[in-house]
Amino acid sequence: MTLSLTAVGLGIIVLGAGLGIGKLAFGAMEAMARQPEISSKIQTAMIIAAALIEGLALFAIVVALLKG
Amino acid sequence: MTLSLTAVGLGIIVLGAGLGIGKLAFGAMEAMARQPEISSKIQTAMIIAAALIEGLALFAIVVALLKG
Amino acid sequence: MTLSLTAVGLGIIVLGAGLGIGKLAFGAMEAMARQPEISSKIQTAMIIAAALIEGLALFAIVVALLKG
Amino acid sequence: MTLSLTAVGLGIIVLGAGLGIGKLAFGAMEAMARQPEISSKIQTAMIIAAALIEGLALFAIVVALLKG
Amino acid sequence: MTLSLTAVGLGIIVLGAGLGIGKLAFGAMEAMARQPEISSKIQTAMIIAAALIEGLALFAIVVALLKG
Repeated sequence: MTLSLTAVGLGIIVLGAGLGIGKLAFGAMEAMARQPEISSKIQTAMIIAAALIEGLALFAIVVALLKG
Repeated sequence: MTLSLTAVGLGIIVLGAGLGIGKLAFGAMEAMARQPEISSKIQTAMIIAAALIEGLALFAIVVALLKG
Repeated sequence: MTLSLTAVGLGIIVLGAGLGIGKLAFGAMEAMARQPEISSKIQTAMIIAAALIEGLALFAIVVALLKG
Repeated sequence: MTLSLTAVGLGIIVLGAGLGIGKLAFGAMEAMARQPEISSKIQTAMIIAAALIEGLALFAIVVALLKG
Repeated sequence: MTLSLTAVGLGIIVLGAGLGIGKLAFGAMEAMARQPEISSKIQTAMIIAAALIEGLALFAIVVALLKG
């Protein structure tokens, strides 16, 4: 009998990463709209924060692939 | 019979870390828009706090890989 | 039959710590934007509180590794 | 058959402590921004309350390690 | 077969106590910011209330240790 929860786990990974990056990018858009003159700085900060979440999620997906 | 919950655990790890980093980075973007002149200080604080969550999550994923 | 809940436990650890640090760092960013002149004090308080959560979470992950 | 719930318990411990310390530190940051002149008093109160939660959580983790 | 729910119980103890102390300390910080001149009185009240939760939780953890 095989009952694999790997796909469920992958789903929760993307749920967390998607909501997190979505929330911070939302904040970035709002901030750019309020202060257009520093939009490149905000974009840099957005990419840094999104990359942190992205890295975690990719690593977790790879581990799920190995252990799933 | 094999029923592995490792992937689900990985999902919850990324869920927590993603929402946490997403929330704080959202706050950082808002703060940059309100006080553009201290945006580099805010970015530093954002990276410190995000790195704390990142470190925990990476350590937890590695432990999940070992113990899964 | 093997059914390990270690990874799920690790996930809940990071969920708590991530949301906690995310919330307090969000507050710290907001506070910096409102009172830029005490931003270093706020950053100190943020790091103190985040370190308390970080310490708990790291200790819990290590215990999970030992007992898992 | 092995089924250990220790890690899940550790997760719930850190969930409670993390959310609790996160919430009170969030309040402390907000309070500092509104009354910067008593920020050291607020920081003291924050550390007292966080230490109470920290102590409970550490004691609970140690008991989980012993009894798990 | 071994199935111990002790750690889960400990987790729920700290979940309740952590959220409770977190919420009341959050209120204390807010109150200090609004009425800075009575901040020491607010801190005393915060410690009394937190100590009541702390005492309950510590006693519950000790009973869990003995009976777990």
